[in-house]
Amino acid sequence: MRDITVFSGSAHPELAEEICAHLGTPLHPVRLRRFANDVLEVQLQANCRERDVFLIQPLVPPVQEHLVELLLMLDAARGASAARITAVLPHYAYARSDKKDAPRISIGARLVADLMVAAGASRVLTMTLHSPQVHGFFSVPVDHLHALRELAAYFRRLDLSETVVVSPDLGNAKEAAAFARLLGTGVAMGAKQRFSDDRVVIGSVIGDVTGKDVIVLDDEIAKGTTVIELLERLRERGARSVRVACTHGLFSSGAVERLSAIPEIEEIVCTNTVPGTKSDGKLTVLSIAPAMAEAMRRIHDGESVSTLFTTS
Amino acid sequence: MRDITVFSGSAHPELAEEICAHLGTPLHPVRLRRFANDVLEVQLQANCRERDVFLIQPLVPPVQEHLVELLLMLDAARGASAARITAVLPHYAYARSDKKDAPRISIGARLVADLMVAAGASRVLTMTLHSPQVHGFFSVPVDHLHALRELAAYFRRLDLSETVVVSPDLGNAKEAAAFARLLGTGVAMGAKQRFSDDRVVIGSVIGDVTGKDVIVLDDEIAKGTTVIELLERLRERGARSVRVACTHGLFSSGAVERLSAIPEIEEIVCTNTVPGTKSDGKLTVLSIAPAMAEAMRRIHDGESVSTLFTTS
Amino acid sequence: MRDITVFSGSAHPELAEEICAHLGTPLHPVRLRRFANDVLEVQLQANCRERDVFLIQPLVPPVQEHLVELLLMLDAARGASAARITAVLPHYAYARSDKKDAPRISIGARLVADLMVAAGASRVLTMTLHSPQVHGFFSVPVDHLHALRELAAYFRRLDLSETVVVSPDLGNAKEAAAFARLLGTGVAMGAKQRFSDDRVVIGSVIGDVTGKDVIVLDDEIAKGTTVIELLERLRERGARSVRVACTHGLFSSGAVERLSAIPEIEEIVCTNTVPGTKSDGKLTVLSIAPAMAEAMRRIHDGESVSTLFTTS
Amino acid sequence: MRDITVFSGSAHPELAEEICAHLGTPLHPVRLRRFANDVLEVQLQANCRERDVFLIQPLVPPVQEHLVELLLMLDAARGASAARITAVLPHYAYARSDKKDAPRISIGARLVADLMVAAGASRVLTMTLHSPQVHGFFSVPVDHLHALRELAAYFRRLDLSETVVVSPDLGNAKEAAAFARLLGTGVAMGAKQRFSDDRVVIGSVIGDVTGKDVIVLDDEIAKGTTVIELLERLRERGARSVRVACTHGLFSSGAVERLSAIPEIEEIVCTNTVPGTKSDGKLTVLSIAPAMAEAMRRIHDGESVSTLFTTS
Amino acid sequence: MRDITVFSGSAHPELAEEICAHLGTPLHPVRLRRFANDVLEVQLQANCRERDVFLIQPLVPPVQEHLVELLLMLDAARGASAARITAVLPHYAYARSDKKDAPRISIGARLVADLMVAAGASRVLTMTLHSPQVHGFFSVPVDHLHALRELAAYFRRLDLSETVVVSPDLGNAKEAAAFARLLGTGVAMGAKQRFSDDRVVIGSVIGDVTGKDVIVLDDEIAKGTTVIELLERLRERGARSVRVACTHGLFSSGAVERLSAIPEIEEIVCTNTVPGTKSDGKLTVLSIAPAMAEAMRRIHDGESVSTLFTTS
Amino acid sequence: MRDITVFSGSAHPELAEEICAHLGTPLHPVRLRRFANDVLEVQLQANCRERDVFLIQPLVPPVQEHLVELLLMLDAARGASAARITAVLPHYAYARSDKKDAPRISIGARLVADLMVAAGASRVLTMTLHSPQVHGFFSVPVDHLHALRELAAYFRRLDLSETVVVSPDLGNAKEAAAFARLLGTGVAMGAKQRFSDDRVVIGSVIGDVTGKDVIVLDDEIAKGTTVIELLERLRERGARSVRVACTHGLFSSGAVERLSAIPEIEEIVCTNTVPGTKSDGKLTVLSIAPAMAEAMRRIHDGESVSTLFTTS
Repeated sequence: MRDITVFSGSAHPELAEEICAHLGTPLHPVRLRRFANDVLEVQLQANCRERDVFLIQPLVPPVQEHLVELLLMLDAARGASAARITAVLPHYAYARSDKKDAPRISIGARLVADLMVAAGASRVLTMTLHSPQVHGFFSVPVDHLHALRELAAYFRRLDLSETVVVSPDLGNAKEAAAFARLLGTGVAMGAKQRFSDDRVVIGSVIGDVTGKDVIVLDDEIAKGTTVIELLERLRERGARSVRVACTHGLFSSGAVERLSAIPEIEEIVCTNTVPGTKSDGKLTVLSIAPAMAEAMRRIHDGESVSTLFTTS
Repeated sequence: MRDITVFSGSAHPELAEEICAHLGTPLHPVRLRRFANDVLEVQLQANCRERDVFLIQPLVPPVQEHLVELLLMLDAARGASAARITAVLPHYAYARSDKKDAPRISIGARLVADLMVAAGASRVLTMTLHSPQVHGFFSVPVDHLHALRELAAYFRRLDLSETVVVSPDLGNAKEAAAFARLLGTGVAMGAKQRFSDDRVVIGSVIGDVTGKDVIVLDDEIAKGTTVIELLERLRERGARSVRVACTHGLFSSGAVERLSAIPEIEEIVCTNTVPGTKSDGKLTVLSIAPAMAEAMRRIHDGESVSTLFTTS
Repeated sequence: MRDITVFSGSAHPELAEEICAHLGTPLHPVRLRRFANDVLEVQLQANCRERDVFLIQPLVPPVQEHLVELLLMLDAARGASAARITAVLPHYAYARSDKKDAPRISIGARLVADLMVAAGASRVLTMTLHSPQVHGFFSVPVDHLHALRELAAYFRRLDLSETVVVSPDLGNAKEAAAFARLLGTGVAMGAKQRFSDDRVVIGSVIGDVTGKDVIVLDDEIAKGTTVIELLERLRERGARSVRVACTHGLFSSGAVERLSAIPEIEEIVCTNTVPGTKSDGKLTVLSIAPAMAEAMRRIHDGESVSTLFTTS
Repeated sequence: MRDITVFSGSAHPELAEEICAHLGTPLHPVRLRRFANDVLEVQLQANCRERDVFLIQPLVPPVQEHLVELLLMLDAARGASAARITAVLPHYAYARSDKKDAPRISIGARLVADLMVAAGASRVLTMTLHSPQVHGFFSVPVDHLHALRELAAYFRRLDLSETVVVSPDLGNAKEAAAFARLLGTGVAMGAKQRFSDDRVVIGSVIGDVTGKDVIVLDDEIAKGTTVIELLERLRERGARSVRVACTHGLFSSGAVERLSAIPEIEEIVCTNTVPGTKSDGKLTVLSIAPAMAEAMRRIHDGESVSTLFTTS
Repeated sequence: MRDITVFSGSAHPELAEEICAHLGTPLHPVRLRRFANDVLEVQLQANCRERDVFLIQPLVPPVQEHLVELLLMLDAARGASAARITAVLPHYAYARSDKKDAPRISIGARLVADLMVAAGASRVLTMTLHSPQVHGFFSVPVDHLHALRELAAYFRRLDLSETVVVSPDLGNAKEAAAFARLLGTGVAMGAKQRFSDDRVVIGSVIGDVTGKDVIVLDDEIAKGTTVIELLERLRERGARSVRVACTHGLFSSGAVERLSAIPEIEEIVCTNTVPGTKSDGKLTVLSIAPAMAEAMRRIHDGESVSTLFTTS
Repeated sequence: MRDITVFSGSAHPELAEEICAHLGTPLHPVRLRRFANDVLEVQLQANCRERDVFLIQPLVPPVQEHLVELLLMLDAARGASAARITAVLPHYAYARSDKKDAPRISIGARLVADLMVAAGASRVLTMTLHSPQVHGFFSVPVDHLHALRELAAYFRRLDLSETVVVSPDLGNAKEAAAFARLLGTGVAMGAKQRFSDDRVVIGSVIGDVTGKDVIVLDDEIAKGTTVIELLERLRERGARSVRVACTHGLFSSGAVERLSAIPEIEEIVCTNTVPGTKSDGKLTVLSIAPAMAEAMRRIHDGESVSTLFTTS
């Protein structure tokens, strides 16, 4: 089959380099020009004709910049006669705008999916979407990975006999249960309550956490306020220790520092889907590059991706 | 503006008649022929040119028959030069197939949305979708109503001082909270746990139900097993009385009879989005025809629909 | 090239099995779930990535069930990254709804063609469409086979010196002439006359049938009334013997029994495009599986299909 | 509603003028430039914004010139913000290319339908298509008129007591029967037989014509060879007199002269869908301008067109 | 007709306010939320149903932010059932990326046009595009205004007897000639020469400028380097005085200050298509709000826009 | 990869033959039928299934005939299951209709691009478009060649020490500069001035031509009036000798004769993108068949085409 050809946008070149190292294929350069009027222009610096092109660009802040850059890369690859173009989105920030909970509001997750297809994406590879329904927003095939196996491999080095996995949110409960199954532990979850448009509190914790070693699992951590509030409840219920794990470590507004300063939190574990995080102090960053590379290889070779990422 | 012109498929003509009575507009007949080879043909029996056409057809069993009939009606209206065609789906059964939780599975909710648009739908009016993300599956405008105000009006005749609204499922918790706000009561919820592919149990109930008058609220009731299992938990926790409420009363496999036979259940309340239910014994069926008619009138007149259906 | 991968819907698994036996390729299973609310879900049980996928599903009664099932299979194959998806329709029931002979009527043959493309079909393989114009309703390539060679091979065992092929309908006359050329016989045809919307009679027979061994050829036989009426005319004209042949043996309402009971009819011959028929008594069912398999092999290998099925 | 605005291409300005006279609306000029390199450019010479634009252009020889001119007019109207654009095709020459009767052949009727929609047509008004299935080739609404009432009004001035309508072709038989019903006469038809790719003969005439006054009815007459051959059969069967009627009088290669020279033919009647014909000698040309104008008025006003043109 | 409803993005609210003042219609608010992960969400704060919606957003720096915001507004308006949505782009920065002058490069002007249509734009109103071919990149109607009449009205207060209009670039020569016609003056132009990818110099000036009062006219001024270089040539040729005029005053990197510091430059005139400029010192900013408002009124009322903006 | 399969329309079979000779692949025949009603039908006479099909058809006079023929060929190839279809347009006449310089005008270059894609083109190979922006009118990949290397190779046999390349038009200046770089000569250019809609004169010549051997370079020559006017200016400036070169030698209205009759013109050089020109007298016709063939080979093999045709 046609060769695999990988390019990276400017959002997370380190991850792209690491993925290419695992694939044993070069990461081809992209020239990004910004004109005096702030307009971007992209040039892919390697032949794309009849190639199986992968464009790696997580949608992370500054999100609009990275999104438009990705759309221009898709357009350039299509114009350059790529046989197939896969947008690789280790993090898809717009996934959270997935419903119309107010009148005359934009549904960004659907719009951005349509924009990527309009710009030339023939398929999408992404990781840990905020809600599984977002998959259906795409009119092209999507491979939706998760990082549970990487996180589980890390935590298995601990004594897990008294451990319980806790989801801070009911929306994430299913994933927490899958993670608990991988670790062979119990599961519990917090129940959020929204009092008004602004204030959300975790009213209770379902399941037994007293005297337990807790692993809090969420899909992403941005400001960390949800985790901090959950800690309050866990403290009240007498949890013995707390570890925090997530796929997407966005960590805005000094969230790592704030979480690290809390004594009960023994460690924070995330993956490198988002740039700018490094293992340091209580923070451990696991690499999902091997998993992404393996998924890309299987996509290229026409092998099943789903069999690789089942948790059962 | 162009006249409103309403047709009904064969799924629920009673509801269509009632809606038209509220609108003060005739329900125009549709001729449905079935040929010897089981092929359907539809003829709309009134002029559609430049009209604002509404086609009422809930997707209820036999779902595939009603779906294909609706698609043929959409095609006929488009071919007959309708100015705008609104598919009115008081119940959208395929909404539950909204995610890809196994490899190589169909996402029916997105596919059927695309089919309706391919057949000619310019907009959709529907009620109480299983998940709010399904809204984003449509590439045309959707008005998404709910029946909470109708249900609330009914329950307000009771003494609600000791009442609590209980959602059997965490997925429905947000809607239950909105309903509780309308009634001025507290809220609680069951937490489902899926043990294997087949067996789902409600493991616990979050929130206080002891000595309370419970109103169980769900989006739809089919076989009723979830409600029955929740009852077990409510009984253990010492609930004083139980009422059951839902929007879509599918009631397959004698569900009404089974639920009515349970002594703790004082009454069952649903709306008439699904045909075949009648107020009888413990069952009370509320009509959503006035709400549907008002929404159709506002769509036709270009007035805001969202302001009508807010719960806050 | 990528492997061929064949799945069958529930309409006619026997034919699919037989086709796969001729292709020497396994028939992969499809899991079809029906939920309590009558919604269908399809899961293709083998890897589709970059495969040349064929989905076999004749649109036979219950037509709407089989159609929606096929659409879900197409959607699942597309979402599973199939390189190419061919809908194999040995019988396409909607082909008869091919014109707008009344105002505000649906044109089912065009609509269903559009639905299949909207659901993901990249091409179509079908057999003996009711009118050749239906080919043009598809926006994707169509291979349109016929079964004349299978039928001719069967009848060549007879003494054909006094045989004439008779089409009951002028619409089918061209195909009858081609069949007669294959057999080296003469041709005649009935002329239908439609008196009102309901009543159609065969007013006359064009061509000489007196003392002849007649082979009546039609594209499909459903209730058999047309054939029975033609018999009346043939009897009047003094035909010596009558055999009945068609591609699609729908045989609704006990048609085989009714036709078999007529003494002049010596035998009835059809193919197995429609399930549920077995050679028995006067009925002989020929298999089109070898022809379908050969066409699928040629499609997969990029060889000409038309050269295989010319009659001249 | 928005004003009606009519333009005519260069194919048949006389018909367009006549239609506009009946509508009481001006025919706006179109500037057609042909550059040195044979490229065409069209400018519509009146404001189109939010107007209900009708573009009149029969596809008659030189067909490719008239087709490209029409496509440019559609593009210009769309770019000029027309609210709705109706392509008015009194004659659609490509309708005859409606099936794939040889491998790797173009299906012109479907392609040209798609081109018109791609260029901006929102609907189509046409007359007497060669086969009714062509209607389904369009993805936009089509109003399909016929000229039977105009022709019938003309022939009613004759003594029709011994008249029979004869279709030269079985494909046109249904229309001939409708025409006979309008006139209150009998019907008969010729049966064509294709001996090889080239030679087609009318083998027989079905129905009684001996001693009758025959009106031969066809959809179009080009070279007239079919009619001449039918005459041979009618002569053999002892028809008393012959009149020839059709909608589209293409009359290529001196067909009028050839037909007029035949003594049995008493007159030839056609309509003015095709330019260049004038009532003269045996030829009478009826105007379909009143019917086209009435259909355009009804389209504009949103009234039913079908009720106007039913023959029953 | 339906009401006009105007919203403004965050790019240039002052211009939007001024346009609405001229239209006598309120500017409706838009709520723009930015989440912790940098994702934007837009809510249009007034009813859009069946309204003629105009969304005002020049694509000015930060361009990607303003572009994504506009796309979200378009999506929100479409989802809110707007009858028609016009994207009003007083400045379209991406217009300069209009050709593929290197392999594997993006053509931003075409891509962004497609994105706006994919997001829901039914038409576009814009001003002084960099090249007229960009008009053809849109698949929806475009009204393309210019500001020559505003600029001419301003300069007519001067004694123009010795004035000549000079275009710094051959690409802009046609517009300069039209401007000269409006002022009744002569025209001259500079000829750029590109020596390598980076360096562009104005090699010569065509036409007589000696002793003349020069008005330099360009479509936009960003860093001002082109104008400064042209000044060098004009100085060599003995021009008497210099004024600088343009439509889009981008003025990046302190361009106004740099230009104002040059003694020969008597004044700089631009319009307010780009925010952030104010009349001050040598700079005069003319308002195009009346022209934009008039164009929007005509679009809404279906009157010709082109007649308003012809220069001949 | 799949085989390359080449067909030619009737516009320029000699060029197609020559291209195929260079490719070492047969030119497959196309049967073009014209029916009595002037309708065209195309049949591709070789198997297209899964082939990489190239259709060679320059859009030259009669342009509308050749355009419709090409669209029918594209449709036939798509219907015949071609894997990829490349429209090869050595000359694209409609490229000149690239902007809307008057209201309600068609933009032919965009429309024809859309028509080709609607008819089935998956990519386009063309040569020397009138403006580079036309590239962006296509929604499929375009390879845009030029003939500068062929022209340069021809002129290098001359003594070029006193030679200067002159573009008659500022619009073509960039290409003239590239050509001069290839030859190692200087460059100059004429400046057209449009006085009214009709009259265009070349007002001046920028750059030094006195005593020089001039090579006039244009993209195409039709009637030759621009060149003749430029000659006037060159004569005034004292040019020593003049040669004329262009890619597209349309030469309408006896242009070759007119140009050859001018004594200063020593020779006229063009390529064979347009049929009907032969080297004779002062005219030399170079073949671009090797370049077209090499581009087609590279497209087929997935090699970079841009690297082949860079001029730097």
